[in-house]
Amino acid sequence: MQKLGKQTLKLEHPVTILETASIVGPKEANGPLAKYFDQCLEDEFWGESTWEKAESKIIKETVNIVIGKSKLPQDKLEYCFAGDLLNQCISSSFGLRELNIPFYGIFGACSTFVEGMGLGAVFIESGAAENLLCCTSSHFCSAEKQFRFPLELGNQRPPSSQWTVTGSGSAILSKSGTGPYITHITTGKIVDMGIKDANNMGAAMAPAALDTLISHFKDTGRKPSYYDAIITGDLGYVGKEILIEMAETKGYQIKSNYNDCGVMIFDKATQDTHSGGSGCACIGTVFSGYWYQQLKERKYKKILLMATGALTNSTTAQQGESIPGIAHAVSIEV
Amino acid sequence: MQKLGKQTLKLEHPVTILETASIVGPKEANGPLAKYFDQCLEDEFWGESTWEKAESKIIKETVNIVIGKSKLPQDKLEYCFAGDLLNQCISSSFGLRELNIPFYGIFGACSTFVEGMGLGAVFIESGAAENLLCCTSSHFCSAEKQFRFPLELGNQRPPSSQWTVTGSGSAILSKSGTGPYITHITTGKIVDMGIKDANNMGAAMAPAALDTLISHFKDTGRKPSYYDAIITGDLGYVGKEILIEMAETKGYQIKSNYNDCGVMIFDKATQDTHSGGSGCACIGTVFSGYWYQQLKERKYKKILLMATGALTNSTTAQQGESIPGIAHAVSIEV
Repeated sequence: MQKLGKQTLKLEHPVTILETASIVGPKEANGPLAKYFDQCLEDEFWGESTWEKAESKIIKETVNIVIGKSKLPQDKLEYCFAGDLLNQCISSSFGLRELNIPFYGIFGACSTFVEGMGLGAVFIESGAAENLLCCTSSHFCSAEKQFRFPLELGNQRPPSSQWTVTGSGSAILSKSGTGPYITHITTGKIVDMGIKDANNMGAAMAPAALDTLISHFKDTGRKPSYYDAIITGDLGYVGKEILIEMAETKGYQIKSNYNDCGVMIFDKATQDTHSGGSGCACIGTVFSGYWYQQLKERKYKKILLMATGALTNSTTAQQGESIPGIAHAVSIEV
Repeated sequence: MQKLGKQTLKLEHPVTILETASIVGPKEANGPLAKYFDQCLEDEFWGESTWEKAESKIIKETVNIVIGKSKLPQDKLEYCFAGDLLNQCISSSFGLRELNIPFYGIFGACSTFVEGMGLGAVFIESGAAENLLCCTSSHFCSAEKQFRFPLELGNQRPPSSQWTVTGSGSAILSKSGTGPYITHITTGKIVDMGIKDANNMGAAMAPAALDTLISHFKDTGRKPSYYDAIITGDLGYVGKEILIEMAETKGYQIKSNYNDCGVMIFDKATQDTHSGGSGCACIGTVFSGYWYQQLKERKYKKILLMATGALTNSTTAQQGESIPGIAHAVSIEV
């Protein structure tokens, strides 16, 4: 393990992303990436009586799929790193309570998936584990109820609002394998630029994304052009534009090879999701579905995967607080 | 790093707990351990307008104290592992947003403090960091509002209920130093034995504590008598008795050297806390205050510190779900 600068770790023995899996809800299944997901649900409940139980089922079944695809016996998975958006991370705790694997609960809001990949990669590099699991989930209906208004109220959503992705993404990291490899980890700091609008998470998270992005470039000595793609989690259309502009003022041109999973997952013209997708499952499903396949097929060889999170809740919004953001990044290469 | 059995890591270069700090609320300040805490507050608000803001201030100031006591420049702290009980871990996110240190949000309910110590120890052992921070907080008033009923309702509390500790505990882990050392980490699994009573967290968490305890003994080949003290986080009087009985049925006698921080922090006769203390700050403050000093003075030389968490929230309780528990343990020796 080599420390580069203040925030980046370079792995001496790059960690293989052995397998990924994703399940998405019906709206995501009507989006442009549908064919890349392992399973598309027909409704938001999936036979459960509540949205929370549905979300737990989604993460549970996604984990079952990734374990099945990996062909690893379940007892070879030594740790699970998981978290989600629901209060007290109940989707993960309840969905994975029968997993019987040493469990680290994590919370980075929508940055959780890459936070878990970073922690997991350190565990494998250190010799603490040979194989482990990272997973996350989110659900449009449970998230709206939790962070904004119950759906039954029928509130209007402003143009800067994003649509929480219903789904789950899961990855198995492994000491042995032929890649794609996690080669670097850049851990984010909490950044709060004073944005208070709970319907504009993209603007709240973009400064954190900028901070991690620039730290990554400074720590590694790389330029944006090093990567075939720079990918953020869920800045959406609004946050994506802000990040491009802010990066440019700092001397980094990312426009040509940068995209955001929240922009990618829904069709802007027909799906009425305003600023795009969000939620832990946004980068979770788009990486586990689309990007992982691009890497496996060597259509992309070097990507910087950066998940962004808004560390807020409905109480702080009511108490007039601003929205702190965070962004965690990993370099993935084939 | 050596893997022992399925759940335990033995550190080849034991990690020093360089310094600890704790701040507690007024009720804890009237308890038997008051003299061990760095600061005792006179009221629950500490000049803030809400309980949530007070809790954020408590964790922030506890971190300031531990950094000051350690005499480390703040920029030598390479990571912060933090989490708490509030929805979306806002106490940590808001309290530590000005810290400017790479941040890993974690959630293990009341097991969070030891979860952070375990993750932090792996980071140091792996070479990812030389010094880092682990911290957590809880607050009686914000926790009651969050998990049970608003205090203004004046609900009665049943005898099995526990009193969430108001306070924060923080520890700096370091590659170099003269101990006390973290030597082993036993990571817990989620265990759910079907307990549904949100006023009996001790019973809900005891099976998870048993699972981790027995795994630790099996993985290390140690017996309970190896330790000068076995310490759980917040099983309280009810959960403590359950753990002693269940351990005995499995062939482990822990009665003579086992205690629980929830039992220790309040006076049963005069403080009316029923089954005792709970919350992330229970083990956080009692370890950072009392136990760390016992280790430094070599009154205790080998302890097993095991934090227990109930992975539940108020929604799952209303939906009729049971309460999954988890317990994370570290061996600490001088």
